[in-house]
Amino acid sequence: MNILSPTLLIDEKKCHKNIRKMKTKAKKHNIHFRPHFKTHQSAKVGEFFRQHQISRITVSSIEMANYFAKLGWQDITIAFPVNPLKVSEINQLSSKINLSLLITHEKSITMLSRQLKNNIAAYIEIDVGDHRSGIASDHYEKIETLVDQLRASKQLWFKGFLTHAGHTYEADTVSKILKIHDKTIQQMTYLSQRFPDAEISIGNTPSCSLSDNFKNINEIRPGNFIYYDLTQHRLGACAESEIAVVLAAPIVDKNDTRREFVVHAGGVHLSKEYLIEQGKKHYGRIVSIHETGWSPPLKKAFMKSLSQEHGIIKLSRDYYEQFDIGDIIGILPVHSCMTANLMKGKEMIINSN
Amino acid sequence: MNILSPTLLIDEKKCHKNIRKMKTKAKKHNIHFRPHFKTHQSAKVGEFFRQHQISRITVSSIEMANYFAKLGWQDITIAFPVNPLKVSEINQLSSKINLSLLITHEKSITMLSRQLKNNIAAYIEIDVGDHRSGIASDHYEKIETLVDQLRASKQLWFKGFLTHAGHTYEADTVSKILKIHDKTIQQMTYLSQRFPDAEISIGNTPSCSLSDNFKNINEIRPGNFIYYDLTQHRLGACAESEIAVVLAAPIVDKNDTRREFVVHAGGVHLSKEYLIEQGKKHYGRIVSIHETGWSPPLKKAFMKSLSQEHGIIKLSRDYYEQFDIGDIIGILPVHSCMTANLMKGKEMIINSN
Repeated sequence: MNILSPTLLIDEKKCHKNIRKMKTKAKKHNIHFRPHFKTHQSAKVGEFFRQHQISRITVSSIEMANYFAKLGWQDITIAFPVNPLKVSEINQLSSKINLSLLITHEKSITMLSRQLKNNIAAYIEIDVGDHRSGIASDHYEKIETLVDQLRASKQLWFKGFLTHAGHTYEADTVSKILKIHDKTIQQMTYLSQRFPDAEISIGNTPSCSLSDNFKNINEIRPGNFIYYDLTQHRLGACAESEIAVVLAAPIVDKNDTRREFVVHAGGVHLSKEYLIEQGKKHYGRIVSIHETGWSPPLKKAFMKSLSQEHGIIKLSRDYYEQFDIGDIIGILPVHSCMTANLMKGKEMIINSN
Repeated sequence: MNILSPTLLIDEKKCHKNIRKMKTKAKKHNIHFRPHFKTHQSAKVGEFFRQHQISRITVSSIEMANYFAKLGWQDITIAFPVNPLKVSEINQLSSKINLSLLITHEKSITMLSRQLKNNIAAYIEIDVGDHRSGIASDHYEKIETLVDQLRASKQLWFKGFLTHAGHTYEADTVSKILKIHDKTIQQMTYLSQRFPDAEISIGNTPSCSLSDNFKNINEIRPGNFIYYDLTQHRLGACAESEIAVVLAAPIVDKNDTRREFVVHAGGVHLSKEYLIEQGKKHYGRIVSIHETGWSPPLKKAFMKSLSQEHGIIKLSRDYYEQFDIGDIIGILPVHSCMTANLMKGKEMIINSN
């Protein structure tokens, strides 16, 4: 590979494998698969999904919806509380594609209803315990008020309930993730019984990767699974070999005493997301790069610290001697969504053997 | 202000004040002022500096050097260990502008010398205690070897010693910062005595803001001071009123029970840099936005958590009632360099009264 600068390597083969696995699971449970494109934000990776006949997608902003609409995606859910200030862009977008929005508050409906020009599907966001956005799943009175308000709206129509159990990321064992997921299914099932016409959309990569319980669910929206990362691996949601992206970075300095390399790969490339493992904070695991991919993570090798453009890689003696200034080394990211966002336009598609 | 999406407000008036202050200090001590442009990476903010007759600049990558060279900047130091793989771009750039590079290792000199086409100034990077990159300041043998190697090189010429005392950011009091800075001055003074022709370049915003000791120094390269941020404020390097950037973000959801707002401002806008203050982790302080600027930080108001696009703002009762969905609220960033990098192309220049 001819790499001179920090470059995000995307292993197409692994991406297809990750898509196939998730699509097969959705098919098995007879539910829609609407992958979240915020992870990759990439036209090319979007094409990988097209090859698997995926046509419905999720994004997290109107800007991202516009980007993918221009690339021909015709059915997009913006899984982020609607920003009522953007009504003019919503009008433009909804005149061209099948758009679904996320409602969390009466005020947004009131503000939007005044100015919306087209019929738009609206999900009500349910908070199943993440406490980020949405209506608490047992706040029935508020949910009913919103459903009524949507049913009375001329432009917005009530499509169903959507949730993101983001608190699965706080779990430290597979069984805790499954427990949160099963509780989510219960909470959403209760709503589907109260509102039999409502579609139920859930989705986060840990649950969708690990669980086989999708009772009363109509749709899943995982995103991170396309690339996975060290966070998902720590949660038990993927194997290390399923991680489909690596940041390739040039070694620019070394310190024999500390057995450290300085690479051109800092917070502006990887993001400053970290993991604490065995009591130590780190910003990524280290791999060696070869012609068609990368090695498994090197033992006792990690990204020790990051500043804006510098990354400090700490290696054990054996590995330290295998690398030198002028070489390219790889970093498995802690959080691939953040890394991919920073590396937009600096990606390279590869195909591992 | 007509703001509909996450937007980085840059207060031009405050920027000019910050430039003027640092320029005056450099002039007083009769040293060159070569501001680091990695903080803003902005053509427009570069023009602010031009208005103060600044012509020498610092950047942290060849890409950034190319960007500013195209905008007419003719004297650029890349204060990052040179990436010898980029020799072709270095050749192109050095045929057009006055370029200075940073050398940390013999191998880089050897690799570059084979292929460099133009005369290029080279600083040797000195590690005064940050332990990121460079040669330890007391490793005289290694320093002499590098100086000799540079003096023997046909293309690279030995310009001097450059250091970045990044460990000032680990200090928690002004006196600790000043102590690190004074030690840096001692370390660099020793080198300037041993190599009387060498230029001495230092620079980090905390020291350059706080100290008046620049004995035997030829040049300072602070960068962050153009905007400052909450990290600098915590270090005592700036007043809150000197912070020249705020992320303006639309409120999209609220939770009356938790007194929280959800804003469209996540890790992809602010970065996930945090501070721990009074035992609590936070990702920014909150201000209200008015026609020509922003308020001082609201008391007991902070960015509690961040995901990719969501930010959760926690407010006390009084302030909570002043805002609503559809309003724009401001976030003072923890680390303005990281925020500005993420917000490239989404800035708005304003002028406070």
